[in-house]
Amino acid sequence: MKVAVSREEHFNAAHRLFNPAWSDEKNEAVFGKCANPNYHGHNYRLVVTVVGEPNPETGYVIDLKKLSDVIRSHVIRNVDHKNLNLDTPYFRSLNPTAENIAVVFWKILREHVDPKLELTVKLYETDRNFVQYPAP
Amino acid sequence: MKVAVSREEHFNAAHRLFNPAWSDEKNEAVFGKCANPNYHGHNYRLVVTVVGEPNPETGYVIDLKKLSDVIRSHVIRNVDHKNLNLDTPYFRSLNPTAENIAVVFWKILREHVDPKLELTVKLYETDRNFVQYPAP
Amino acid sequence: MKVAVSREEHFNAAHRLFNPAWSDEKNEAVFGKCANPNYHGHNYRLVVTVVGEPNPETGYVIDLKKLSDVIRSHVIRNVDHKNLNLDTPYFRSLNPTAENIAVVFWKILREHVDPKLELTVKLYETDRNFVQYPAP
Amino acid sequence: MKVAVSREEHFNAAHRLFNPAWSDEKNEAVFGKCANPNYHGHNYRLVVTVVGEPNPETGYVIDLKKLSDVIRSHVIRNVDHKNLNLDTPYFRSLNPTAENIAVVFWKILREHVDPKLELTVKLYETDRNFVQYPAP
Amino acid sequence: MKVAVSREEHFNAAHRLFNPAWSDEKNEAVFGKCANPNYHGHNYRLVVTVVGEPNPETGYVIDLKKLSDVIRSHVIRNVDHKNLNLDTPYFRSLNPTAENIAVVFWKILREHVDPKLELTVKLYETDRNFVQYPAP
Amino acid sequence: MKVAVSREEHFNAAHRLFNPAWSDEKNEAVFGKCANPNYHGHNYRLVVTVVGEPNPETGYVIDLKKLSDVIRSHVIRNVDHKNLNLDTPYFRSLNPTAENIAVVFWKILREHVDPKLELTVKLYETDRNFVQYPAP
Repeated sequence: MKVAVSREEHFNAAHRLFNPAWSDEKNEAVFGKCANPNYHGHNYRLVVTVVGEPNPETGYVIDLKKLSDVIRSHVIRNVDHKNLNLDTPYFRSLNPTAENIAVVFWKILREHVDPKLELTVKLYETDRNFVQYPAP
Repeated sequence: MKVAVSREEHFNAAHRLFNPAWSDEKNEAVFGKCANPNYHGHNYRLVVTVVGEPNPETGYVIDLKKLSDVIRSHVIRNVDHKNLNLDTPYFRSLNPTAENIAVVFWKILREHVDPKLELTVKLYETDRNFVQYPAP
Repeated sequence: MKVAVSREEHFNAAHRLFNPAWSDEKNEAVFGKCANPNYHGHNYRLVVTVVGEPNPETGYVIDLKKLSDVIRSHVIRNVDHKNLNLDTPYFRSLNPTAENIAVVFWKILREHVDPKLELTVKLYETDRNFVQYPAP
Repeated sequence: MKVAVSREEHFNAAHRLFNPAWSDEKNEAVFGKCANPNYHGHNYRLVVTVVGEPNPETGYVIDLKKLSDVIRSHVIRNVDHKNLNLDTPYFRSLNPTAENIAVVFWKILREHVDPKLELTVKLYETDRNFVQYPAP
Repeated sequence: MKVAVSREEHFNAAHRLFNPAWSDEKNEAVFGKCANPNYHGHNYRLVVTVVGEPNPETGYVIDLKKLSDVIRSHVIRNVDHKNLNLDTPYFRSLNPTAENIAVVFWKILREHVDPKLELTVKLYETDRNFVQYPAP
Repeated sequence: MKVAVSREEHFNAAHRLFNPAWSDEKNEAVFGKCANPNYHGHNYRLVVTVVGEPNPETGYVIDLKKLSDVIRSHVIRNVDHKNLNLDTPYFRSLNPTAENIAVVFWKILREHVDPKLELTVKLYETDRNFVQYPAP
């Protein structure tokens, strides 16, 4: 009797898409205006879903207040009002596409969520562009 | 060639989170402000999804007008503008967490939707806190 | 060169509509299911707007972080996860309709926002029912 | 390490639900006001999801700008500000229910998206009525 | 102490933009794809706002349930799942632009809302295109 | 018989809040994490409203397609996927707060919208923080 429970958190960050192994011309050709060397930014929406059986005493799969605290302490605090390329350790040599951001966040959160619970991360870069890891 | 079709309905209700086997102190410690004895409330959003093959004559998996009528008659009518703990038979001895509400609603709807169709219930307690049963 | 700046905050509360001068029958006749003696509830959205000239040094009419702190300290803290009728001083003898809630919140906030700034409160009881005070 | 990436596009179209093998009375009985011979219409929202492994050089499963171009060229251009029954080749003899529209769009897009990538189409006829093909 | 109270209702309709005094070429030149002779359509959102003083006995400017009934009986019923050009009396010789629709609805509603209450109509043709009458 | 018509456009940009006349310490004290020297960013939503009488021949106050083109050519193109502080001429010596951005955009648009039409700009920095110029 497994239930999925989800919590949405937000952060605002700058980034640029950029492969340091490539010339500026190639970065511009591949990533277009997303390669702007002076950065652009987004209001990211992050939805974290955990799957498990509700505890019969509490009726909770996980206390969403605690899940929110985990997401804020281990993810949001490190990226909110930051430059993803410059201010975080994650994207020094990894391109901060929505796909890569989602995988990075999933790996961080996996360390802090009970291993008996399945974990999924959904990241909205805009309302119209979003990713999910792992894929459904 | 299975298609999933979904219908969203809304209801407004009061509830409190509370385990009657526990002391008030323990309820307060575990459920925090959600344990308020005088209740609080939500605008719940309920999304019901059924999965099946479209009927070749109608192009419908299910007539969403009829699915809406089923949800309203068997679920919404019993919970809208109600106190989930006091005014419904479901949560006398079951804690009305989003997880438990979703499972209860799924069991009710399962009786009224063609058994050939798979059924999923998604319940938004707020825009940022939501659950799905069965888990994907 | 006046600019209006707005901040949205949320709270979840229970309430019932009820005039203590009336019989139960009259309350039921006038307020329908909103008069349920066991309460129902909402995810309220509160938008507070202040109007003034941006400070030339900061570019702010008001620091929205500070406006958010004022709204949370003086309004949200007193109503979130509360029963508006029972747990707050405001609606002991005043019916907690959206209209009355908006006026009460405006009066509270008016005490804590610089009198040189005009103040407006918009309250969404649901996405489809909302009020504004003062009216535009 | 598969990631799902999604792009949302919009179109506005007229349609009616109608089975030409049936009498007007039967169409009216089955499809109700959706059978109106003079048509009605919707702001459709179309979410296209592809699943695959991010390219290690780009960090993209697929460039969402390119996916957007594919959706616009092969789907949106053919249906936006159109009458789905009269102006498109797809629904001459197929009833334009949300289910059938989603399957038709999936078949079109399947021709234009790398076969190594899984493909899903989600179509919102209204915010409260939506379908997904293939079902999850 | 005037408060504005608002109620949102929805309808789905087909229309085309078209001036019968003009040639097809001119209609196409002015209205572009909106002039499609076979129509297109929208999920319209209609927000009706009334302004007045709350009744001290009820705390209501107007009972939003009654306002909703008025909007549904006198507006929505006449346009939902209809072709605005063909199926309604309003747009036989009047072009159904969002501006004209809003003015027509305002005139209808003005007959059915207490003249002591100010009345405003806001109409969303899409989430990105909307109008208000009278202008603020 | 004046009608207000509105068009919403979007852009994604990086910025920092910063007064060059102040020390880093003072900027940090006043603007907090918004002063991050490496920038952060937002998905801005821009709503432009014009007020006037509908043209009796078209039913339009203004063709929203043309208003959209004006906004895109004269505003969005200059700020989308840009760093507001570094990549635009507007915020070299002006702090890019939402208030200042709105006023700058209003002045640009005022040059390109018929002077007979009133003009208002609403800018959402996030869903919860937004400004309007001129104030209502």
